[in-house]
Amino acid sequence: MRFNRIGALGASSIGVLLSAMVIVGCGPQQAAQVSQAPASSTADLMKQRGLSEADVSAALQTYTPTGKKDEYITFASGGHGGNMIVIGVPSMRILKYVGVFTPEPWQGYGYGDQSQQVLDMGSRFGKDMTWGDMHHPALSETKGDYDGKYIFVNDKANARIAVVDLHDFVTKQIVTSELIQSDHGATFVTPNTEYVVESSQYPAPLGGGYAPIEQFQDKYRGAVIFWKFDREKGKLDKSESFAMELPPYMQDLADAGKLDSEGWVFINSFNTEMAWGGTIEGNPPMESGASQNDMDYLHIINLKKAIEVAKAGKTTTIAGMPVIMLETANAEGLLHLVGEPKSPHGVDVTPDGKELVVSGKLDTHATVYSFEKLKGAIEAKNYDGKDRYGVPILPFNDVIRGQVEIGLGPLHTQYDDKGNAYTSVFIESTVAKWSLKDLKVLEKVKVHYNVGHIVAAEGDTVSPDGKYLIAMNKWALDRFNKVGPLLPQNFQLINIGSEPMQLIYDMPLPLGEPHYAQMIKADKMSPVDVYKPAGYDVVTDAASPNAVKAQEERIERKGKTVDVYMTSVRSHFTPDIIRVKKDDTVNLHITNVEQAHDATHGFTIGSYDVHSSLEPGKHVDITFVADKEGTFPFYCTEFCSALHLEMAGYFLVEPN
Amino acid sequence: MRFNRIGALGASSIGVLLSAMVIVGCGPQQAAQVSQAPASSTADLMKQRGLSEADVSAALQTYTPTGKKDEYITFASGGHGGNMIVIGVPSMRILKYVGVFTPEPWQGYGYGDQSQQVLDMGSRFGKDMTWGDMHHPALSETKGDYDGKYIFVNDKANARIAVVDLHDFVTKQIVTSELIQSDHGATFVTPNTEYVVESSQYPAPLGGGYAPIEQFQDKYRGAVIFWKFDREKGKLDKSESFAMELPPYMQDLADAGKLDSEGWVFINSFNTEMAWGGTIEGNPPMESGASQNDMDYLHIINLKKAIEVAKAGKTTTIAGMPVIMLETANAEGLLHLVGEPKSPHGVDVTPDGKELVVSGKLDTHATVYSFEKLKGAIEAKNYDGKDRYGVPILPFNDVIRGQVEIGLGPLHTQYDDKGNAYTSVFIESTVAKWSLKDLKVLEKVKVHYNVGHIVAAEGDTVSPDGKYLIAMNKWALDRFNKVGPLLPQNFQLINIGSEPMQLIYDMPLPLGEPHYAQMIKADKMSPVDVYKPAGYDVVTDAASPNAVKAQEERIERKGKTVDVYMTSVRSHFTPDIIRVKKDDTVNLHITNVEQAHDATHGFTIGSYDVHSSLEPGKHVDITFVADKEGTFPFYCTEFCSALHLEMAGYFLVEPN
Repeated sequence: MRFNRIGALGASSIGVLLSAMVIVGCGPQQAAQVSQAPASSTADLMKQRGLSEADVSAALQTYTPTGKKDEYITFASGGHGGNMIVIGVPSMRILKYVGVFTPEPWQGYGYGDQSQQVLDMGSRFGKDMTWGDMHHPALSETKGDYDGKYIFVNDKANARIAVVDLHDFVTKQIVTSELIQSDHGATFVTPNTEYVVESSQYPAPLGGGYAPIEQFQDKYRGAVIFWKFDREKGKLDKSESFAMELPPYMQDLADAGKLDSEGWVFINSFNTEMAWGGTIEGNPPMESGASQNDMDYLHIINLKKAIEVAKAGKTTTIAGMPVIMLETANAEGLLHLVGEPKSPHGVDVTPDGKELVVSGKLDTHATVYSFEKLKGAIEAKNYDGKDRYGVPILPFNDVIRGQVEIGLGPLHTQYDDKGNAYTSVFIESTVAKWSLKDLKVLEKVKVHYNVGHIVAAEGDTVSPDGKYLIAMNKWALDRFNKVGPLLPQNFQLINIGSEPMQLIYDMPLPLGEPHYAQMIKADKMSPVDVYKPAGYDVVTDAASPNAVKAQEERIERKGKTVDVYMTSVRSHFTPDIIRVKKDDTVNLHITNVEQAHDATHGFTIGSYDVHSSLEPGKHVDITFVADKEGTFPFYCTEFCSALHLEMAGYFLVEPN
Repeated sequence: MRFNRIGALGASSIGVLLSAMVIVGCGPQQAAQVSQAPASSTADLMKQRGLSEADVSAALQTYTPTGKKDEYITFASGGHGGNMIVIGVPSMRILKYVGVFTPEPWQGYGYGDQSQQVLDMGSRFGKDMTWGDMHHPALSETKGDYDGKYIFVNDKANARIAVVDLHDFVTKQIVTSELIQSDHGATFVTPNTEYVVESSQYPAPLGGGYAPIEQFQDKYRGAVIFWKFDREKGKLDKSESFAMELPPYMQDLADAGKLDSEGWVFINSFNTEMAWGGTIEGNPPMESGASQNDMDYLHIINLKKAIEVAKAGKTTTIAGMPVIMLETANAEGLLHLVGEPKSPHGVDVTPDGKELVVSGKLDTHATVYSFEKLKGAIEAKNYDGKDRYGVPILPFNDVIRGQVEIGLGPLHTQYDDKGNAYTSVFIESTVAKWSLKDLKVLEKVKVHYNVGHIVAAEGDTVSPDGKYLIAMNKWALDRFNKVGPLLPQNFQLINIGSEPMQLIYDMPLPLGEPHYAQMIKADKMSPVDVYKPAGYDVVTDAASPNAVKAQEERIERKGKTVDVYMTSVRSHFTPDIIRVKKDDTVNLHITNVEQAHDATHGFTIGSYDVHSSLEPGKHVDITFVADKEGTFPFYCTEFCSALHLEMAGYFLVEPN
């Protein structure tokens, strides 16, 4: 065999190449020759691409050149995708996708023992849940302002809450209580994140038992759970959490009071008709059965007092959760109701904590409640009767400041730094800007199409920033290239700092149906680049007892159990040959000993469904039974270096 | 109880609102008042946001105003995310995320019987695979040009190929053969998509058995599978497919010949050293063991002749696949090798089919092979010896036209419409533009950082378009806001129509590690908006025998089996109350009878891990056992109308 060496690098050059890779790992290197691109003429480009003056303005407000950073970070729920989407504003680029309720292999979430433990926390009635329906993210707050440390998200379908740590953007915990069978008024946090609020949506017998639907009014109930957050541990503490029974209205959204209203929680509802459908049994469908009354009920909860009542043990334990029953809530004056016009879908406390805005989706108004008046009516026991569950009802006219005619299908409200409110208007597909002081609509901007939630920059905190607002539109229709019957959502970015408001970007979002989002100033965040020390367990947030150091790699057999202590570093796993016998239990302990930014590896064994992502410093454990004899390659799934493809080995399962 | 009606809509107004929704479903409606935004001054915005003239040019080349469409569609593999990402060019917005190897609940992929059947096709050795490592998508071709009908993708980890139908962007089929244990040279199609090429990467005993690693040279083998595509059925036909045994080099990438070279397939390789690591057993790691030789082997396969040999039955069946063994391949002259400098990582046939470009990652050159010379040497049996497996080796110097000095770590090559080639240069982080005719580098553009594959507009077809090229960069480092240790990839869009080339967009991509992509002119695609007729099974691509029509909804019990025939339409499911007994087998048959564009619903039963996406016209079946008694709400998971939250019902499981 004769090989011609034409320009091939000798074996001695490999070291040079690998060194170059290490440099790349530590920071940008210089290329030998770099093009300097000429700027095409603005006028030519406008003509060529059919851009208007407004388009040019929008382009320049959103375009973020290479290496420049975004000013805000938006955390959007992923709807029934079950995961969370992190978006830079104003560029509207997706910066991260965070596995929460649905396994996601790129980040190794749900693959490997650590993250599998997190998903296992979310099983219900002994059954694994393989997805979630994420609705409302809530950033942790300090004094009513986002602090950039944690974010909480709910799963409406399975009544779960997850905690994502923003130091590494990893889901650390999932909690659930079988007390309730769905949640929608979740998650919302108290101003110092003492509690995370989760209220049920569809009533059911508390604790998950069966009751005939005909006994809906007597046996079905709603509930709200107050999950205690232990900030030091970064975990929700079930042992310090409690719940309150609620009537079987369909509790919808919630909000925590702040400043003047701190210590109170507000939850709206629909279906005070207590309809339950039954169409093929001769009843009207819920959509009309639940839309008969002119008013539904806003729930006003004295959380501060409820905490005392719960601490005093005046609770009944159901499904392991201490519950303040309605009878106790009534006796202790913890819960009051007030009418809210017609199937409302948002309750949003104003930045000063003095007022609440509620919009009824079958009403054309936003209603502004005065917290002072609510409190006054409660203290004066100024009741307008009680509901059939004995809950006192406050007189609507005595507790509102007024109403604003918004339009067809108003839903959710956010705030800016100039005393304005912004309300999404679903049916007419607009966002209405209105003056909180004057209760007058100032302006509307059209969106495409059917806006649900909106999110403004820090727009639900004590100090909103104004500037940007995203309309989270439910239908996309003709906005984007056709991609088959399932369309993305459309997030439209609106400059609310300009007058009039200016629509500046359309962002298709095909990763679930985000319901709500929160937008935080980017400079409040300080995530880490690398896990230190190497051998870091991302779920316990501490060095793993199984961490492996370079030169200490080994394979240990005890009976039919094989422990493999492995490291990864560009561009090899050590060991790279693993020999086991069929039916051995295999415990892989893999530490990525890299400490360079972005030096991520992946690990997979073909046909064994074994996979993991190994960010720099991360340790993972993977446990499985070698139940199939054969010759199985393993390799690195992240293109980590020029010799990435050579970062491989064999998992050899000998016959017994 | 006294309710004040302040502006609340009466019950009679509900009908009006619902009608409005239907109108929305059919097309955009007009908003009452719409802002006309003023254009901010370009100079002001440049100053305010620190934009250069080049940035303004880039912004205007990429910004795509609301309602305007993208010119190209890019299909990117999702790496170890396992799914496919669809991106609009030049806006670089993600238009769709297509579930392929990993379940994805937003699109209901892997949730419900139909898509679960597709995932089940991909099990290996009786084990379910819950993810994949997708590398190389291949659009279907007609006469060597993309036809926009199908796309094929591989799973390197588990040696699988999937077929995605671009009429609805849904995965219809997964095929796998236990013949091989990984694939990398997949997927590549012949010019009329007669065959889809899948070649192995890491050698193993053919068929998946065990053999000691020390017998690597004797017992381990590579192979290439030629999957026959039945275009009429839109499916790969295993019964018409066959494979060819290859020596145990690590076959890497492949390409099919076209025009002059049609009927031939080329596969490069590394590790002709046949190293297998064994570090803790005293061997060098594979990264150095596999990098000793100055040359590796390009494989040249006469596919046309191989088809005849396979049809003649000169095959051995292994793991159910007819395999042309090496001995036969040699006897029939089907396989030849030729040296290629040093651990190559790309083989790319030129648009005219006359030449092949190979780059060695440990070599600084691109080598240009002449197909005519290769064919001439084969016909003349101008051999430079044979390898230890009896495969003839062609003399390197006799079959190349020349080499181009590219830079450090050249990998992959694409083409434009002006006779230029573009090669990614991994270690120096550039894309090099060079003249195919002159074999001279014309220009380089710097990218950030470590570019793997590149994709140009239709850049691997017989008629590349030029215009756009995306550098698929492996590291992101300082390009975007910090999001923890796991970083997105960076897709950088380059205008290759300008001279010099101009970097015009940075796109973070946090959905796996895309390896390769293909970019097709958008006007070649014609996906449907709605499934017709309603009751469409998206896997059989025909009306489902279980399709349900409005007014024909029903619940049927046979013994302990309950069949529920359900429809969905804004805003109710019919039936909305389902009563079963514990341990009943439940078969849900749900048809979304909507025929309006974007009128998608979702269906979930809480705590039962039952979920589905119901695009307009789609039918799904969901089978499960009601093994937990209780009261379980079900509801629509897509915000479909103003009364979406009321689109709910109850799944009631009575005790036995």
